[in-house]
Amino acid sequence: MTSSQQLRSLTIDNINPHICNAQYAVRGELAIKSEEYRAQLRKSHKSGPPTPPESPDSSPLPFDKVISANIGNPQQLDQKPITFFRQVLACLENPKLLDHADVLESTFGYPKDVIERARWLLSEIGSVGAYSQSAGAPAIRESVAKYIEERDGFPADSANIYLSAGASSGVNTLMHIICGSPKTGVLVPIPQYPLYTATLSVLNARCVPYYLDESKAWGTSMEVIKESYEKAIAEGTDVRAIVVINPGNPTGASLSESDIESVIKFAAEKKLVVMADEVYQTNVFVGQFHSFKRVLRQLQQQDKEGTFEHVELASLHSISKGMVGECGHRGGYFELVGFDKEVQAQIFKFISIVLCPPVIGQCLVEMMVNPPKKGDPSYELYNSEVSHVKDGLYKRATALYEAFQKMEGVECGEPQGSMYLFPTINLPQKAYAAAEEAGKAPDDFYCLRLLDATGICVVPGSGFGQKEGTLHLRTTFLAPGTEWVGRWNKFHEEFMDKYRD
Amino acid sequence: MTSSQQLRSLTIDNINPHICNAQYAVRGELAIKSEEYRAQLRKSHKSGPPTPPESPDSSPLPFDKVISANIGNPQQLDQKPITFFRQVLACLENPKLLDHADVLESTFGYPKDVIERARWLLSEIGSVGAYSQSAGAPAIRESVAKYIEERDGFPADSANIYLSAGASSGVNTLMHIICGSPKTGVLVPIPQYPLYTATLSVLNARCVPYYLDESKAWGTSMEVIKESYEKAIAEGTDVRAIVVINPGNPTGASLSESDIESVIKFAAEKKLVVMADEVYQTNVFVGQFHSFKRVLRQLQQQDKEGTFEHVELASLHSISKGMVGECGHRGGYFELVGFDKEVQAQIFKFISIVLCPPVIGQCLVEMMVNPPKKGDPSYELYNSEVSHVKDGLYKRATALYEAFQKMEGVECGEPQGSMYLFPTINLPQKAYAAAEEAGKAPDDFYCLRLLDATGICVVPGSGFGQKEGTLHLRTTFLAPGTEWVGRWNKFHEEFMDKYRD
Repeated sequence: MTSSQQLRSLTIDNINPHICNAQYAVRGELAIKSEEYRAQLRKSHKSGPPTPPESPDSSPLPFDKVISANIGNPQQLDQKPITFFRQVLACLENPKLLDHADVLESTFGYPKDVIERARWLLSEIGSVGAYSQSAGAPAIRESVAKYIEERDGFPADSANIYLSAGASSGVNTLMHIICGSPKTGVLVPIPQYPLYTATLSVLNARCVPYYLDESKAWGTSMEVIKESYEKAIAEGTDVRAIVVINPGNPTGASLSESDIESVIKFAAEKKLVVMADEVYQTNVFVGQFHSFKRVLRQLQQQDKEGTFEHVELASLHSISKGMVGECGHRGGYFELVGFDKEVQAQIFKFISIVLCPPVIGQCLVEMMVNPPKKGDPSYELYNSEVSHVKDGLYKRATALYEAFQKMEGVECGEPQGSMYLFPTINLPQKAYAAAEEAGKAPDDFYCLRLLDATGICVVPGSGFGQKEGTLHLRTTFLAPGTEWVGRWNKFHEEFMDKYRD
Repeated sequence: MTSSQQLRSLTIDNINPHICNAQYAVRGELAIKSEEYRAQLRKSHKSGPPTPPESPDSSPLPFDKVISANIGNPQQLDQKPITFFRQVLACLENPKLLDHADVLESTFGYPKDVIERARWLLSEIGSVGAYSQSAGAPAIRESVAKYIEERDGFPADSANIYLSAGASSGVNTLMHIICGSPKTGVLVPIPQYPLYTATLSVLNARCVPYYLDESKAWGTSMEVIKESYEKAIAEGTDVRAIVVINPGNPTGASLSESDIESVIKFAAEKKLVVMADEVYQTNVFVGQFHSFKRVLRQLQQQDKEGTFEHVELASLHSISKGMVGECGHRGGYFELVGFDKEVQAQIFKFISIVLCPPVIGQCLVEMMVNPPKKGDPSYELYNSEVSHVKDGLYKRATALYEAFQKMEGVECGEPQGSMYLFPTINLPQKAYAAAEEAGKAPDDFYCLRLLDATGICVVPGSGFGQKEGTLHLRTTFLAPGTEWVGRWNKFHEEFMDKYRD
């Protein structure tokens, strides 16, 4: 490359190659195309009834709505926010509303505990427009500690709680600390939420994949984990941490207590940080959520030899999922257990560089971990809203699951939790050939055709990782109604008919 | 290190060394100590009147309030948020308020344009609890483009606008893209806001410092920039970008049009990305703000040979500063000019990994760039609030400047803009000796003593960079009242008396 040829400072060939190498399919080609379709539909809606196309680009689409099933974004798909949360937030944004608490109550139906919570939060944080401390407002971190104590039955210390801009930001922080050299490796489940592999790519560190067992409802297999670990060590990888997503994304699987124990024992033996992504802890249909923190504390209680004394656990949670679904507010936290004090000081410095997580998001974290209690004026409504969302998710998951049962070549386990189904799709050889001709992987090809024909946007299994020779896709079950499932069904039949061998 | 000695996976010796090397004094030792004092005061306030100390740790402090002058955090220091902004945000958080627009108007004094703006934003973004597109909601990016067009008199394209979680997050993104190897270098002004050096450390890239000229009101000197550049090139550094903070942080200086032209010409010649940190664009007392974008477009207009055709400019702005002061909401944007399309696709992927900036912060960006106009019902109040903040800042800056004039050994230029003064402090030799004995740099030592004696937290000049042999400190002029300035004055006299040679 000579300087006379190079027009700019930055070209695809000379920018950070680790970013170029990163893959993040959840917002990749399909998502970008779906947003283009959405913009096209908005334009045509705005300009009245459809008119004859002026150019090939503006030809009418065969659907009138884009269904973004590629990303767990509940409120985009009409999940209603929890009223208590939003009433409090309105008062935090404009505290002058509190000057007429009586009118808020009589005209707008704000219960007394909304007013009280808003006043308390304001007294603790001051203005939501001010930076908080880097790890978040102290009072909110104390609420989180209390929540964890009540959930697990073991003490939690607010000094070890770090609020974050969603769990993604917490993962980013922890990975930055852990990944000190190109030989650093982190065990990551496959399939996984691609945040993990993307972040490892950006940090030029190594992903050490361990496959989940589809035949056992996507559970962990210690044998597989050990094999992956040994293989990585043999290749000179300095394995330093293991990621567990529980309940799983994209799989929805909840780990059993004994599976969690096994992971912790392995981490203790090999001195690995356990990163427990527990953002779906309330999205459980089948089985039960067991927190890594509680299982670790139980092991430590029974532990006479100090085997588990120094196990390092980082457990992440978020306001984006569960029945809260407030992704746009970017709130979350992580709790550190067993971390060295000097290391924590570096974590503090790192998060200080970007100052603090969004304060309104912090307030939502507070309300998520400290919602209205039985007897509080807001409790009945809160409880019915949470149940409604939970029931709705289960119903939608089941409807989608049943639709998959009827689709030729599609195999899907029963919905277990999180917000996703991750079916296997068996495509005919002709579809493989057509995909190859189009320069696409077969699962990409299927998903692109689905989007073009129906406006439904899902993510190919390759975006999460899948065993060679298998094909999957991930879809959320958040979209309301069944009309879109019908559209999918029809598309699938036509697709299979077209490419049947 | 043997495995029997190592208790944990992560120790200060084996985590990411680039994070350990990063320095970020704005929230460093002094800020941490000031928060401890604040917590101590809160505790003693809560438990009633001061009681005799129980332990040395809980001895009463010689002040009853901590003044956080270390960080530009206006609303922590009683700057009032703009009413229009917060009224709209309340409606966005709880759209049911809009069901009784009449009551909002009659009882709470919400003008009609608040209701209209809230309805329009909700129609464009849906719920503020939903993820937006990765680069931000399209309608908000269009508002930003319109603002830039009106400011500069040249077109702006919303496709080149990226909303961000404050300018810090934008800087983080751009530096990630630029820094592809340990040899990559970025020209950074000294003194500077330490976000730049800290981010370069984390990315294991090279800071190429260029000193600002204190004798010329902290202006840029092209000679100095060229020298720094040539020296870096000679050392094998691959210099790829130049950072300019205009108006300056910590200096407050506004660059002249011809200084900006010179920087752009240099960038064009050497093919450097210009990163223009323009977050203080409305905080100008002396001189005038000239945007890099406008100056670049003017150069391009006159340019017959295409010298400036491919200049890459990234210009950053934020809701945290100016008269908005909404840091806690984490909002901002950057505009890219002249960037390669493939590079922009990588930027898009990178920001997609953390999904989207906080949506409420995005809405604040929209209102910052599109505030009430003359004739709108909210205009009078908006205008008076903005003027009040601006006047207040100037008065406070002037009062502090005058106090510095009277302090022995302190030299301070007239307040020019931003939110800071950056005086030189000339300390007696005995103070240097006392600092050395305490294991501190002399400016650190002075600032620590100031904090201990008065509760005033400022940042030593070393945190921003300063010429060898000189000492400075950075203080915001945000804190209300003059009582604290009196305390500082008294401390300074006593300090100088104690250490006078």
